[in-house]
Amino acid sequence: MQTRLCQMLGIGFPLVAFSHCRDVVAAVSRAGGFGVFGAAGTTPEQLEIELSWIDAHTDGHPYGVDLLVPENLAFRTEAGATQGSLAGKIPNSHRAFVHDLLRRHSVDPTAGRDPREDPDRLPSYQFETAEKLMDVAFRHPIRLIANALGVPPASMRERARQHGIPCAALVGAREHAERQVAAGVDILVAQGGEAGGHCGEVSTLVLVPEVLRATQGKVPVLAAGGIMTGRQMAACMAMGAEGVWTGSVWLATVESETSPVFREKMVAARSRDTVRSRGRTGKPARQLRSAWTDAWEGPDSPAPLPMPLQGMLSEPAMARATRAAEAGNAQARALVSYFVGQGVGLVEDIPDCRQVVAGFMTDFAAALEDMQRVAQSL
Amino acid sequence: MQTRLCQMLGIGFPLVAFSHCRDVVAAVSRAGGFGVFGAAGTTPEQLEIELSWIDAHTDGHPYGVDLLVPENLAFRTEAGATQGSLAGKIPNSHRAFVHDLLRRHSVDPTAGRDPREDPDRLPSYQFETAEKLMDVAFRHPIRLIANALGVPPASMRERARQHGIPCAALVGAREHAERQVAAGVDILVAQGGEAGGHCGEVSTLVLVPEVLRATQGKVPVLAAGGIMTGRQMAACMAMGAEGVWTGSVWLATVESETSPVFREKMVAARSRDTVRSRGRTGKPARQLRSAWTDAWEGPDSPAPLPMPLQGMLSEPAMARATRAAEAGNAQARALVSYFVGQGVGLVEDIPDCRQVVAGFMTDFAAALEDMQRVAQSL
Repeated sequence: MQTRLCQMLGIGFPLVAFSHCRDVVAAVSRAGGFGVFGAAGTTPEQLEIELSWIDAHTDGHPYGVDLLVPENLAFRTEAGATQGSLAGKIPNSHRAFVHDLLRRHSVDPTAGRDPREDPDRLPSYQFETAEKLMDVAFRHPIRLIANALGVPPASMRERARQHGIPCAALVGAREHAERQVAAGVDILVAQGGEAGGHCGEVSTLVLVPEVLRATQGKVPVLAAGGIMTGRQMAACMAMGAEGVWTGSVWLATVESETSPVFREKMVAARSRDTVRSRGRTGKPARQLRSAWTDAWEGPDSPAPLPMPLQGMLSEPAMARATRAAEAGNAQARALVSYFVGQGVGLVEDIPDCRQVVAGFMTDFAAALEDMQRVAQSL
Repeated sequence: MQTRLCQMLGIGFPLVAFSHCRDVVAAVSRAGGFGVFGAAGTTPEQLEIELSWIDAHTDGHPYGVDLLVPENLAFRTEAGATQGSLAGKIPNSHRAFVHDLLRRHSVDPTAGRDPREDPDRLPSYQFETAEKLMDVAFRHPIRLIANALGVPPASMRERARQHGIPCAALVGAREHAERQVAAGVDILVAQGGEAGGHCGEVSTLVLVPEVLRATQGKVPVLAAGGIMTGRQMAACMAMGAEGVWTGSVWLATVESETSPVFREKMVAARSRDTVRSRGRTGKPARQLRSAWTDAWEGPDSPAPLPMPLQGMLSEPAMARATRAAEAGNAQARALVSYFVGQGVGLVEDIPDCRQVVAGFMTDFAAALEDMQRVAQSL
């Protein structure tokens, strides 16, 4: 396929796969899609390791990197801040709530050392951290840099220009799209409210035409949110999107580092089993409903903390619950959750990434054939 | 277009238009779509008048009728029940809440006589009422009967069979679709959570493939929820839907009986200005956010009453607010609302129904052409 978007990314099939797992990123790019490594939450040292591995496993196929630098944060850390300097902002009552929740599910709230609790670690989602991650990313042959929450910082757009690669941004509302284009973003990802992770409330089917109408073809638009099949991809392109950005579908692959417990939950889940909750990151993010999300919705629950504090509480706790569940603790299993969209209702098994990409291509072609038959019958 | 669905309905372009306005139903059918008259809330006498008018104005083109007979109601009325016998179930505190709300918006809560407050009137949404409405509907040459909430009663399916016309039902989740097909429904309308009126939470883009997978082609599936354009229609058909069921787009037409105040609000509204609320009917229904919906979400608000009681409270009150707003009362204007989906963000003007149908056809053909270009470039 020769479209503006395909040329920008150096690909022939505009299926973009977002993943925090390097194996997924490399496998999708090798199979003819475009893998994007989600670097939010990693350290610069870790990112260097991941991208070097990807370079060695993509056989020269293009890939990208996604950061999460929120435009709006409740507070910004000072230069040199660490997780340790932020930890004091987490109320003891919140820590007690989480410890109690874990104990009620037979999970030891202090079991094992979690690297994300290291006080010397750089805080996530901060400009300073993002700069250091970008220092690493731009030393690698990335073909796209994206920001997952709000207008990318000026330095991200500037560095992308210097390296001759596009800068993408996710949007959940028409107004965001207009601001992003005005700020000089090269590719928009119009992500509907059915998506996993941070999302708005407008559905993909409504948001995509809204964003296209508002931006008038100035930049390519990728559709995102709920897309698990090539027919849905064809649907989005029939509306005028130049491709799709996908996430949840890659969690249910053999290459994914997702816990086997969560993968089993995905296969069992219905589309109505997800919830848009602040309980994981502090901002509304869609995830599988579990005892964790229920706990933060309760009438007596404390309000979730602003980003990044809520994640500092939730991530180590959820890691402990997941490890306990993997070890066979049935009560802990009830807590296990992760970011996933409503498309989880379409997950039936755990294929490998090559099969998923091939399935998208077959399914996409079948949809085009059907549409050709319709066109001939008009 | 010659599909199974088109043959069932006797049409060439599978654009179904749901409306409570006879002018819209007739205009859409005349223009090559398929109008469906929403009979919920009308009396048998009124329905006879409406359908006779439609018969005289469709030039022989096919149309259908939609009823709202909920599968689950908090209580069923006895034979011979009237609105008067139900009125005692509305707590005085709820009446006081509504009266106070209207007064705070400078609306006289007892202004004018509202026919829906007639104590001798048949209660809405009841089997007994539905039977009488069906007595009327089946005396007219309808080509479809549909139920908007749950499995249609056995008598609806049976009468449809006797008259040789299909019986359709709306579903908002895969499980509902499986039950409907098992009950013998002929056409499914898979309606996503972005739809106006009663809706679930799963988006159209996810629900349509889920329903198609669950029902394995046993019956045609119409996609619904957020569909305002021919490109979105093409998108849904690329996923395998045999056509679309639309509602909100017809509210923003010159033929619609919608208040001019509400039409102005629709043109101004963004897709994020709708809310899924129990405040209008007692069951979750998407509508334009207004001072009315806000009032029922407040921390000190009474809980909305079960269907049909909440509607007995809300409909006359909203009619009074709307009349006051039409007369220039700016405070009353803040209350005005109606059932509308997220697609309201795509409403830019108020065309006539013929223009809307023609726009769908042009837009649909443009999407097919684009997809043909994509197919050739593969």
